[in-house]
Amino acid sequence: MSMPDEFQTLLVRRHGWRLDVTLNRPESRNAMSGAMVAELLTVFEAAAADTGLRAIVLRGAGGTFCAGGDLRDMGSGPGGSGPGGSGPGGGQDGSDPAAALAAMNRAFGTMLQAAETVPQVLVAVIEGAAMGGGFGLACVSDVAIARDDASFGMPEVRLGVVPAQIAPFVVRRIGLPQARRLALTGGRLKAVEAQALGLLHHVEGADALEARLAEVLDGVRLSAPGAVAATKRLLLEVERGDLPALLDRAAHSFADAVLGEGQKGLPAFLMKKPAPWAVAGGDLG
Amino acid sequence: MSMPDEFQTLLVRRHGWRLDVTLNRPESRNAMSGAMVAELLTVFEAAAADTGLRAIVLRGAGGTFCAGGDLRDMGSGPGGSGPGGSGPGGGQDGSDPAAALAAMNRAFGTMLQAAETVPQVLVAVIEGAAMGGGFGLACVSDVAIARDDASFGMPEVRLGVVPAQIAPFVVRRIGLPQARRLALTGGRLKAVEAQALGLLHHVEGADALEARLAEVLDGVRLSAPGAVAATKRLLLEVERGDLPALLDRAAHSFADAVLGEGQKGLPAFLMKKPAPWAVAGGDLG
Amino acid sequence: MSMPDEFQTLLVRRHGWRLDVTLNRPESRNAMSGAMVAELLTVFEAAAADTGLRAIVLRGAGGTFCAGGDLRDMGSGPGGSGPGGSGPGGGQDGSDPAAALAAMNRAFGTMLQAAETVPQVLVAVIEGAAMGGGFGLACVSDVAIARDDASFGMPEVRLGVVPAQIAPFVVRRIGLPQARRLALTGGRLKAVEAQALGLLHHVEGADALEARLAEVLDGVRLSAPGAVAATKRLLLEVERGDLPALLDRAAHSFADAVLGEGQKGLPAFLMKKPAPWAVAGGDLG
Repeated sequence: MSMPDEFQTLLVRRHGWRLDVTLNRPESRNAMSGAMVAELLTVFEAAAADTGLRAIVLRGAGGTFCAGGDLRDMGSGPGGSGPGGSGPGGGQDGSDPAAALAAMNRAFGTMLQAAETVPQVLVAVIEGAAMGGGFGLACVSDVAIARDDASFGMPEVRLGVVPAQIAPFVVRRIGLPQARRLALTGGRLKAVEAQALGLLHHVEGADALEARLAEVLDGVRLSAPGAVAATKRLLLEVERGDLPALLDRAAHSFADAVLGEGQKGLPAFLMKKPAPWAVAGGDLG
Repeated sequence: MSMPDEFQTLLVRRHGWRLDVTLNRPESRNAMSGAMVAELLTVFEAAAADTGLRAIVLRGAGGTFCAGGDLRDMGSGPGGSGPGGSGPGGGQDGSDPAAALAAMNRAFGTMLQAAETVPQVLVAVIEGAAMGGGFGLACVSDVAIARDDASFGMPEVRLGVVPAQIAPFVVRRIGLPQARRLALTGGRLKAVEAQALGLLHHVEGADALEARLAEVLDGVRLSAPGAVAATKRLLLEVERGDLPALLDRAAHSFADAVLGEGQKGLPAFLMKKPAPWAVAGGDLG
Repeated sequence: MSMPDEFQTLLVRRHGWRLDVTLNRPESRNAMSGAMVAELLTVFEAAAADTGLRAIVLRGAGGTFCAGGDLRDMGSGPGGSGPGGSGPGGGQDGSDPAAALAAMNRAFGTMLQAAETVPQVLVAVIEGAAMGGGFGLACVSDVAIARDDASFGMPEVRLGVVPAQIAPFVVRRIGLPQARRLALTGGRLKAVEAQALGLLHHVEGADALEARLAEVLDGVRLSAPGAVAATKRLLLEVERGDLPALLDRAAHSFADAVLGEGQKGLPAFLMKKPAPWAVAGGDLG
């Protein structure tokens, strides 16, 4: 699958080995509609097949990352704007609203899995609010950077709904004890609190945010793309158990890397020269 | 099962949708006897069947949360006061002491599981010491608040015994690396250290403790009880693996919530009105 | 297996119930060669059979903990010094280099597992750098103490290789979210940052490092060795799931401890006397 040229809910722009993806529904604070979920899935699936790509930078337009699920999609079943058209398996008008809602919701989880496993380094840059589904999206990034005035939360239970698809991603990101408190009482977090919980890696003032992003991308630039993808695959497998089998696979992954990119990277390191993948920063833009 | 009227080792009092449970053996610093374990299990099982209940507040009488297991129960096998009478399966006098000790210990784990999975929000308020079994009990709360002079630890190995039933709950709460250090050397933690490890969500001075509890309960008040119970169930399932199956169940849970409590919660949110479950704070007492 | 008298790459010295193990290739900053991996495995296997031993203190000679894998072992396949001689299953000269590299790498994982499961308390004392494989070794310690100027990282991907065998141990130590950032961008951590992530338990200035180690060993001295080993076994089993079965085993472990070491430890505690295993500090040296 190649990357489409146009999107309804996203701005997608490629700069060399970097892809900028901007949630672009500022009129509804980038609420995660069914259409946005589908387009993000397309982006991550296309990225997975694009070997020239090394980083994906995800942010929101208009000073908000993402305010959460689009409430209109949960509207009023058959009578509302409905979820029918947005998810795979959404029923015809008037058909089983529970099945349609479940399908729409499940599609969001499929997208989060695609985001989590994308072989590139996924960097989330969070300004303003990251709530509900936006919180979940932050949880699948490899590196999360936030502005110090950003805020975070899972308000679902206060609206009578459930942070359903994001639940596993939140637990894996911030741990069960913190997920319990946050999800069960619908509370909010400031950026520094979210950093202490492990949701965020960096919190910066408005004037230092872009510099931090550049530094993170510099780390990507210096790293071998094949080794990064193989490492990410191994890390994500750890929670699936069976340590000896994982270590066996890891050993073969290691050998492949040494005999592949390592043939250039190891001598470059020993000679204190840049590796071939450490392209100049100027190539980026 | 309905809630009994009287307990030997606990004070149990209901205030509207909130249940206050106080460990009440101050003469032995609320040491966790077999009788207390059995009564706590009764409380959590009765609570699980009580749909009008939304929060359980657990604390200790006399300025201590819980000093740990009751050493008299581990006494001296056949010669001591013995565990025989306290646990399910405890042997007759003089019968296999290992089986009786194992049964008594195992009953504690059953109670911790019941506490962890109770559908209400379980809030632990910790003053003084939370040691051994008391530490384990803190680990299964949804929200843990402690006074800043509280202290925490697992001294078992220094007494030649094993923090056996609490081991899994401690690892899930504070992580394996911290559990190793703490359990293997029998060390102690101050409240701020316990907060840094994720055991506690809030640490407060004596004069701010009740205000923090009220704030947490306010979060409970604003949240839909069915959504809270469904969310808690999902969060606790995450560690059991099989992500796609979990996401499938989550999607149905989501649809049920939207078509249930969400039918009132979503419009209330959009109209900036209180949801029907957001009962006035005054209803509490 | 008993402890060998001599090692090529390690200094191993016993002081009573404590074993000091020093990585001793200062000329290459204690890079983890195949020979060092094999010798460490021997040490941990011998320690596992040595019931008189209660603590293992692991550090590096010459002011560095361990700079990572020995790059010469990854050299240039058949043409280089090669991994052939260092790992089990390493091929003959000129034979399949991928299989030889995989076998050498896999042996490192076997050693890490032996280190993680050694029944004694494993204390890592980290000065200077702990990179790559050295980072992994720190991840399997029960207690990790570092000097405040130590530095940590997984630079593998910048060299085109994969932090393969250490991946699961890193994820279990610092969590997936932090492991992702660190492993995928090849960045570095200062000691205080590594402490915040849970890699380290204590960070001390140069003049306080030995005092902290002594304090940790004092905790070991006060703890019953059999209870420590049983507790460690339980903690390490938690992540393998099946909670009820684990709680069953835990209950029997508890009963064994109460009827074993607890027969001396519990009365000593009640009479405020030292337990028999709480040997005087002077016995150590």
